[in-house]
This record gives sequence, structure tokens and C-alpha cells, in this order.
Amino acid sequence: MYKSEQLAFSIKQLIENGSIKAHEKLPSLRDQVHRSGLSLITVLNAYQELEAQGLLYSIEKSGYFVAEHIPFSVPTHPFPSVALNSKVEINSLVFRYLKSIQSKQVVPLGSAFPNHELLNPSKLIQIMSQLSRQKRYYDQPYNLPPGNYELRKIIAQRYSMQGIPTQPDDIVITSGCLDALNLSLQALTKAGDYILLQETIFYGAWQIAERLGLKVVTIPEHPQEGFDIEAFEQAIQTYPIKVCWFMLNCHNPIGFTVSDKIKFQIAKLLHEHQIYLIEDDVYEELFYRGTKPLGMKYFDKENLVLHCSSFSKTLGSNFRIGWVYAGKFSDHIQHLQLMSTISANSLVQNALVEFISHHHYEKHLRVLRRNLEKNKKDFFDYLKINLPSTCEIHHYASGYFLWLTLPSDMNSMSIYENLIEHDIGIAPSQLFNVQQAQQNHLRINCSFEWTIEIENAVNQLILSIYKMQN
Amino acid sequence: MYKSEQLAFSIKQLIENGSIKAHEKLPSLRDQVHRSGLSLITVLNAYQELEAQGLLYSIEKSGYFVAEHIPFSVPTHPFPSVALNSKVEINSLVFRYLKSIQSKQVVPLGSAFPNHELLNPSKLIQIMSQLSRQKRYYDQPYNLPPGNYELRKIIAQRYSMQGIPTQPDDIVITSGCLDALNLSLQALTKAGDYILLQETIFYGAWQIAERLGLKVVTIPEHPQEGFDIEAFEQAIQTYPIKVCWFMLNCHNPIGFTVSDKIKFQIAKLLHEHQIYLIEDDVYEELFYRGTKPLGMKYFDKENLVLHCSSFSKTLGSNFRIGWVYAGKFSDHIQHLQLMSTISANSLVQNALVEFISHHHYEKHLRVLRRNLEKNKKDFFDYLKINLPSTCEIHHYASGYFLWLTLPSDMNSMSIYENLIEHDIGIAPSQLFNVQQAQQNHLRINCSFEWTIEIENAVNQLILSIYKMQN
Repeated sequence: MYKSEQLAFSIKQLIENGSIKAHEKLPSLRDQVHRSGLSLITVLNAYQELEAQGLLYSIEKSGYFVAEHIPFSVPTHPFPSVALNSKVEINSLVFRYLKSIQSKQVVPLGSAFPNHELLNPSKLIQIMSQLSRQKRYYDQPYNLPPGNYELRKIIAQRYSMQGIPTQPDDIVITSGCLDALNLSLQALTKAGDYILLQETIFYGAWQIAERLGLKVVTIPEHPQEGFDIEAFEQAIQTYPIKVCWFMLNCHNPIGFTVSDKIKFQIAKLLHEHQIYLIEDDVYEELFYRGTKPLGMKYFDKENLVLHCSSFSKTLGSNFRIGWVYAGKFSDHIQHLQLMSTISANSLVQNALVEFISHHHYEKHLRVLRRNLEKNKKDFFDYLKINLPSTCEIHHYASGYFLWLTLPSDMNSMSIYENLIEHDIGIAPSQLFNVQQAQQNHLRINCSFEWTIEIENAVNQLILSIYKMQN
Repeated sequence: MYKSEQLAFSIKQLIENGSIKAHEKLPSLRDQVHRSGLSLITVLNAYQELEAQGLLYSIEKSGYFVAEHIPFSVPTHPFPSVALNSKVEINSLVFRYLKSIQSKQVVPLGSAFPNHELLNPSKLIQIMSQLSRQKRYYDQPYNLPPGNYELRKIIAQRYSMQGIPTQPDDIVITSGCLDALNLSLQALTKAGDYILLQETIFYGAWQIAERLGLKVVTIPEHPQEGFDIEAFEQAIQTYPIKVCWFMLNCHNPIGFTVSDKIKFQIAKLLHEHQIYLIEDDVYEELFYRGTKPLGMKYFDKENLVLHCSSFSKTLGSNFRIGWVYAGKFSDHIQHLQLMSTISANSLVQNALVEFISHHHYEKHLRVLRRNLEKNKKDFFDYLKINLPSTCEIHHYASGYFLWLTLPSDMNSMSIYENLIEHDIGIAPSQLFNVQQAQQNHLRINCSFEWTIEIENAVNQLILSIYKMQN
């Protein structure tokens, strides 16, 4: 063992046996050097290691303090930090789940992707096939970040149309939305930073935060508003949060869209505390009432918001074109791209320019929204009548998911295990909640046309819930 | 050892101990056959192997000559670890550099990409345009890691043909080679781990290591062998290295290919110390003598090597299809993909299957190699005659780069700054060496046909060197 590891180990023991209490200050670096006879760098390494492990936290110009530690399985405290075991477990759960629903035989009610029959519009395929005949669309040695200028211009115009003044240079094209989110998080954080997530969230966010060595704090969803502004305020007052990662429009998996009033309050708090927000807004175009919901960029007067989206949910995930409204972070994000995904396919970028600038995109979106809304309504109507009355269906006028709440003693993991035996996929709440606190919800993909096969699968689900009740 | 290797080894010793001097002619193939009693093919293999290693050069109808060999670096300290400041500096240097050479007006002698006119073969474009007409190639909601089975099978067969038994499930398709390298490094390390890099290396490696919070140790290049096995041994005895990241075939930027003998020794040491190796082998197909150089997988009996490559240098970087021979790490790497790039374009994957399985790839590679070799030779011949004699050209029978060593008091950054004013790009050594120890080298991209425009650019370079000498 290195000397710094030895020191870290003995401090850890003192914390674990209660000799040093939560929020107690540790000896200063200088004092510790004096006491231990170790070098400053050794002591610093030991403290930093314990901080990385979440056992200490540091306050600038004040020193190192013992962090509070609460078991993650019993969230007695609204913002428990995430322990290692649970994170590892969700990784393998997610992986097993994704593998299990990948088979073509499985009825894809557990899928995150919209029904592909509604995507890949024939006009876009026609454009792709026209462009793909021409060598010059392949010959792009200069296809580097920030991506195709014309496409960035089109995306900037779409923001401007919503009242968000945007220049092409604010936009960086990425390999899908997840790439955009990932790059944004990398640009804004370093290992050991605190990040605030919603408690129920797309599982990728947890995993990315884990890999980057970030400390994750969560806030629970508000039962009516979706977003709990009081919990948010409390969290940022309690922890030195550097970055938030939120989904506020057509939240996956639950489905709510946060009101403009609350968005305004979020922006105000971000501003007061100078906290960055990475907004995952990948479902922004899939609204079925009124106008497109506002992204947080609309309320952001200080360039604190990095807004991420893509064409994956509206045109097809295979295109793998997303973007981030990066603003002043554009250069930094391009740096990171140059050492990871480099650039998105230039043929596809050119095809999208052609497709969108000739108004095919808006036309396609209208048809897509109509179909998705109809299919979701068919699912909702059937479930409303046939589900046991002990179940609750969360239904919102956007997206293509329904979120079911089963009786609190029921475990949706068992439902998943049961249905996958019959080649039917669903997404249990454990995938979206690392605390494993919520065991009794499930997400259903309702983007499919109501066929006999779908009806049969849904019946199996209902049956499985009835059986578990008895 | 094969007989050809024995012969190569003894010639090498004669060169190294000075018995045969630079530019001295070797016995003709016929004479050597007569002397040694070996077959013509054995002698030819030995000569070609030495040429591939850069120890010999050949002149058509004249024979083989001993190449000039001067140490290309003077490392002051064998394993300096990397200081923070220099890393930050290289980031902005790389970014400024890449932005400056991105303009279409700039003569791309500084580019890392091969001349795009030689890539994107028309047969592949034809296949792409055929497939892109069919909706089913877009309709792939199950396009998830590890990627297209048929493509993985083809890649596995190519390994097997080299004597490396491989199953499709050993391969994971990625969004280009850099994505493969990135994912491999993430899979094998956690923050604080030690990683060993070559001192002169593709700049992305430094930056990725930096972002993952790894501790970087470097070994200098060996002036004759390319790889310094003694420095390697010393490094792994001194530091608790967990992972190495090496480029051993057609090294970028220098150009050397490490001999099989040394590769064998590397594998032995990796095995003894149980250290993982991530091998960047993206130029593996661009050899101009003998057969494809062996990847380290060939010598790896314990699944310690993750071999990464792509089609970017042979078909075009826009396709963005790479892979990693992940073996037992396949699941882990797929996990990481699911939270970053998710999957590579399925249309392109299908097109590659079609293209390669109908033997178009091999045909294309033959033409590509011939053209690249010819173009590189034109550059070499011109530079050989016209460069000041104080400069040295490192010439190897692979790849499309030439690495120039300028007089030691010259700074290639100044040459770069000077030339970019004239819209001519070159790649200064500072991009590849975070220690900033090597200031007097530069990399030239020689994949372009020798036109008047190229000749003018090369003349400007030569002029700029002459001016700096005075």
C-alpha cells in the first residue's frame, strides 16, 4: 500500500467507527503533515481519494469535512447520495434488460424507441438515396466539429422561431442526443463535482455520472407538478451542486411536462446560484396539444443552460444526428468531440438539410404526432377499462409512453420477468430509479398500432398483474 | 524464428554495429541467395521486412540500400509523468491547429486523413445508394451493440486468416477507431489508474487519459527499433501500470512498424505483469511490402490485448465504422456504448458487409496501396533532393506520412505558423508530444498526387526551413 492509501485507510476507519462524526472538520493539510510526518502531496492525495469516495467533502478556504452517510435503500433523507453497489446493480440490470428486449420476437412494449414504421419518412429515404449516389457527399475530409453549417443554421432558426435568439455557431452537431448530453456533462464537470438529477430519470444519466466520478444528488418528482421546486431549492442550498441534468418536457419515463411558471423559477434559482443545467429535450417535438413546449434556453439569460436534442425520436435513431445548444461552450464541446466521436455522418447531415429546408420535416411531424397520439389513446382506453382499479395510469398529451403505478406491494421486476418468458417486453421502474425505492411502476411503449398481437400482449400484462394481486 | 527472420536479424546487427553504412548497397537478391543458401523468397522476405521497419530503402532496378538512422528524440528523463499545464496547453494547440487546417483553401499536408480522392470507392457508393433506397435498412430498432452480426463475422474471419482464431462475438462495432479506443480505455480503467503511453503518439490519447483522470507515464521511442523494450520493462517495474496504449504498426506520426520479435517480447512482459494493452492499429492495411503486419492479438494468449481498428483510413472517415477485438470485455464495452454512442449507422454497416463479402475491399486495398505508395515516393524523392542536408527524412514502407527531423535548434511550431500564413498546413511535433521535449520534427501527409500546387507547397516548406537556418 502507498503511504497516501494507508493514511486514507486509517481516516476511513475513524469515520466508520464513529470517532469522527458527520460534518466534523478534519485536521488541515498542514496540521496533518505535521502530525503524520508525511509529505503534503501524500496527505493531499489521501484527502482527495476520500473525497472521491464520497466520505469527505471540501469547502474552499475552509478545509475537509466528513460527509453524511445514509444507506441508499432507505431514503429517510430527501437527497441521498448514491452508493456504489446500487449503481453496479443497475448497470447489469439495464444491460440484461436491453439484451432481453432486443430479440425480434419480443413484443417491444419495453422499447424506448418509437415504432419504426412511423419514422424514416419515404421523402427522407428518397433524398438519402439521391445524395448517396454522389461521391461529393462522401468526400468531406473537412467534416469536423461543429458540423454542417446549413444544418446548424436550420436548427438555430427553429430556436429563433420559439423566441430564443440563436446563431448557427451556438449549435454543435453530435452523434445523437446521448452524445450531446455526454459531451455537455464532460465539458461542465470534473471528477468529484456534485451533479443534481431527478430521482426518476433515463438510466444513461446515472451511468455517465458514475463513469465521470461525479457525486450524484437526486430530487424526487412532485406528484402534481412533475418538478418539485422546493426540493430543488433545498438540494442546491444543501449541496455544492455544479450541474443539473433535467428532463422537463415529456419526461421519460413518467411523461409530465413542467409548466412555464416552474421553468421560470428553476431558471431564477440557477441564476442565483450560478448552476449549469443540461436539458435533455429529446421528445420536444412529440406534443399533441397546443404549441411546442419551451426549452429552458427560453428562460436562460446567462448562458447557464445547455439544451440537447436530436432527430432520433422523430426520424429514426439510425440517423444518429443530435445537437447541443452549446453557446459559449461550443469550443470546449468541440474539443471533446475531437477525442471521441469526431463527427456525425456528413451524408445524413446533408440529407437532413434538404429534407427540413423543403418543409418535409414539419409535414412529417404532423403525421407522426397524429399517429402517435392515436396509438397511445388506444392503449390508454384499453388499459383504463381492463386494468385492476388498484392500478393508476399516468397519461399526458405528449410522447408515446404510459407510466403505470401498481399497488405499492407489487414489484414490477417480477412482472417483467414473467412477461419476458412470453416474449413480451415492458420497462420496470427499477431501470429508472437507482435508489430502488420505486418498485411498483412500469413504462409501456404505446407507439404501436392496436393489433391483435398487441392486444394479446397487453392482456398478458393485465393478467400478470391480476395474478400477482392474489 | 523463421529463416527470413534470422537473415533479417543478422543484417540488422551489421547495420547497427556499423559494418554496413548508411546508403551502402546490400548484396543483390541473387547474390544473397548464392551466399546464404536460402531460397529467393526467404531472402526477399527478409529484405522487405527490413524495409518495412525503415532500415532499408529500395530503388527500382537498383536494389536495396541501408537507410539513414538518427535518433529522433533526446529524452531527458526516461519516464516523466505529464504535468497539468502542458496538457491544457496541448488541448488548445490541437484545437487551434485543427481549426486552422480545416479551411478548404489550406493545402492539407497537415491533415491526418488520407487523400479522399483515393477513398470512397465507386463500388461502395453504388452499394450504399442501392441499399439506401430500401426502407428496411433504416428500420432497425434493434440496431444495438455489439453491431451487425454479418460485419462482425467478416471482421472475425479477417483475424482468423492472420492466424488469430476469432469469433464474431469477440468483435464490437464502434463509431470509428477513436470510439473503440475510448471505450476500451473506459472499460479497463478507473480514475487514478496508471496508463503507459508512447512518448510520441496521436494527441487524442493524451486528452482522453486526461479526461478520465488517469496518471500518464510515457516511454520514449527507440531510435532503431521504434519500440524501446528496455524502457518498457523499466516503466512497468517502476510504476503500477494497469493499461498500455500503443501503436506498433505504421506508427503515427513517426511511421515505424515494430518487429515481430519485439512484439513477442512485449506480449511476454504484458503476460508476466498482467497488464492490458489497447492497440491502435488503424493503419494496419496500409503496408506496401510483404504481408499485413501482425497485431498484438497474435501474441496474446491471455486476452490482455484489445485490438482497435476501423475502415476510416481505407474507405473514408465519413463512414465512421470501427471495431474493437474485445473478447471477454465485449459486455463491458457494450455497456459503455449504451450510455454514449449507442450504435453505428446500420445502413453503412450493411453496405460494408455487401462490399467486403464480394471481395471489393481487397481489390480496393490493392489500388489504394499502390497509389499511396507512389504518392509517398514522389514526396520522398523530391524532399530527398531538395531539403537541406541538415534535415532527416524518416521513410518507411507503409502509411502516407513522412516524419521530418529538422536541426535540433529549429522549432517546427514556427514553421507551422509561417506556412499557415500561406495557407499550407503541416503537423508540428508539438502536437504529438505533450512533454514539449521534441520541438524539431514535423509530419507531412504524402497521400496526394504530385501536382504543381503540391510542389509549390512543398517548396514553401523547404524555403521556410532554409530561412530559419539563417
